[in-house]
Amino acid sequence: MKAQFADYKEKVLQSFNHQGLAHTLGIEVEDFGPGWFHTKMIPSQQILQHHNYVHAGALASMADLSSGFAAYSLMSEKEEVLTVEFKINLLRPAVGEMILCRAKVLKPGKRIYVSESEVFTVNEGIKKLAAKATVTLLVVDMD
Amino acid sequence: MKAQFADYKEKVLQSFNHQGLAHTLGIEVEDFGPGWFHTKMIPSQQILQHHNYVHAGALASMADLSSGFAAYSLMSEKEEVLTVEFKINLLRPAVGEMILCRAKVLKPGKRIYVSESEVFTVNEGIKKLAAKATVTLLVVDMD
Amino acid sequence: MKAQFADYKEKVLQSFNHQGLAHTLGIEVEDFGPGWFHTKMIPSQQILQHHNYVHAGALASMADLSSGFAAYSLMSEKEEVLTVEFKINLLRPAVGEMILCRAKVLKPGKRIYVSESEVFTVNEGIKKLAAKATVTLLVVDMD
Amino acid sequence: MKAQFADYKEKVLQSFNHQGLAHTLGIEVEDFGPGWFHTKMIPSQQILQHHNYVHAGALASMADLSSGFAAYSLMSEKEEVLTVEFKINLLRPAVGEMILCRAKVLKPGKRIYVSESEVFTVNEGIKKLAAKATVTLLVVDMD
Repeated sequence: MKAQFADYKEKVLQSFNHQGLAHTLGIEVEDFGPGWFHTKMIPSQQILQHHNYVHAGALASMADLSSGFAAYSLMSEKEEVLTVEFKINLLRPAVGEMILCRAKVLKPGKRIYVSESEVFTVNEGIKKLAAKATVTLLVVDMD
Repeated sequence: MKAQFADYKEKVLQSFNHQGLAHTLGIEVEDFGPGWFHTKMIPSQQILQHHNYVHAGALASMADLSSGFAAYSLMSEKEEVLTVEFKINLLRPAVGEMILCRAKVLKPGKRIYVSESEVFTVNEGIKKLAAKATVTLLVVDMD
Repeated sequence: MKAQFADYKEKVLQSFNHQGLAHTLGIEVEDFGPGWFHTKMIPSQQILQHHNYVHAGALASMADLSSGFAAYSLMSEKEEVLTVEFKINLLRPAVGEMILCRAKVLKPGKRIYVSESEVFTVNEGIKKLAAKATVTLLVVDMD
Repeated sequence: MKAQFADYKEKVLQSFNHQGLAHTLGIEVEDFGPGWFHTKMIPSQQILQHHNYVHAGALASMADLSSGFAAYSLMSEKEEVLTVEFKINLLRPAVGEMILCRAKVLKPGKRIYVSESEVFTVNEGIKKLAAKATVTLLVVDMD
């Protein structure tokens, strides 16, 4: 997969920096390229549930954001993407020093993009798959 | 649907009060009973995306929490529920003075509960369906 | 919801009659109108699994078809719909003299329609919810 | 992943041979092992929709069956699995001489298994991803 213009990284980062929810939850960009987007999050009390696991909603937010930006990295200068729907399976309790998300575009299309996000816990260097999401996105023209 | 013990409301509220993510996102209990759970959220800059719509992840968190507590209200004193997976469709931009979520149990089971959440925007008293989620939950014994 | 032209029923039925899978599985139209579509299926050995329940795949086919036609009933003469994705929860074993499916459009859009299908078993006149599906559809121009 | 007893292949094949829907749709076992299951299907008029694409419901049936058997291969002699829910994204029109499905267990659990199915079209030896499904399964004791 290829980006559609030279400065796509700038456009992507600028948009990410306007995501209030990412800042609220502590989700940061790790790295990205055309069709993929990696994020990280250090769990704080703010996003935990009653067992001190990271709440499903925080993992879902991370998965949706990362998959959306994986698709966004392939848009032209005048296009953006909207999440149509997503589905996430929670595979194990998300307890960890760090949460990583690896998103990639599974299928680009004319109007519909489908991305996948894998969410991992990291403890003492050991990465475990904690959640997996499939995200359907619609390409729209920017206003 | 019927609660399994007299003081179930106390147990439910106590657990909700331990949901760090709910507090972070500003999700509050509106009302609940056996098999249903209603929440509300006043959108703040913290949960908006770049168009000032409420971010899909915040709606998903609200939908997951509300559906989970709808099922939790039917558990015995020693049981709780874990989200196995959920799927959410974003139906229109979530712009509003207030966001409401109406969750109910669609099917109780021995081990698996399925709940649904409808998320509405409210503007000048007009309620519009903004998202709908289906949530699959597993009944587990509390430690 | 309103049909876009007078003879929409003819167009809908003509398309349904070309669905090879519907005939293979024994899915028949019961009734329909603008934005809704009802189907029925009498379980035969052909669609059962090893416990003599109707197989999830047959219920999913019925749910997808019915939701798709609920949206199709709202298209113009030159448009049709494609299933982008669907999700189905199997709520109880599908054992019955008859299987019914009730589909309706949850949200029409410019390019994306979202429909829901409820699948019921019928035994001695008693209807029980056996499955529920959410279906995302894309509006496309006919060739 | 490891099978729980020596003769698991016999048990798996015996159960597959009782799947009426697989025979109706022409779905055959290609190969399998502990935690994975591959199937194939030659498209016939019976499973096509009006554009002569394989109908979403037939792909969904193939994906559900294959994912279910991937999990079933890991069960003990007295256990089986039930589909709790699945979600499938249709990624491109399924036109082909042959349809292949590659299913594997993503996460085994005590009570819940999650599997994934990738469905491919094959034309003149070229394999293309046509659909992808995530399937949630519940482990139950056989009667």
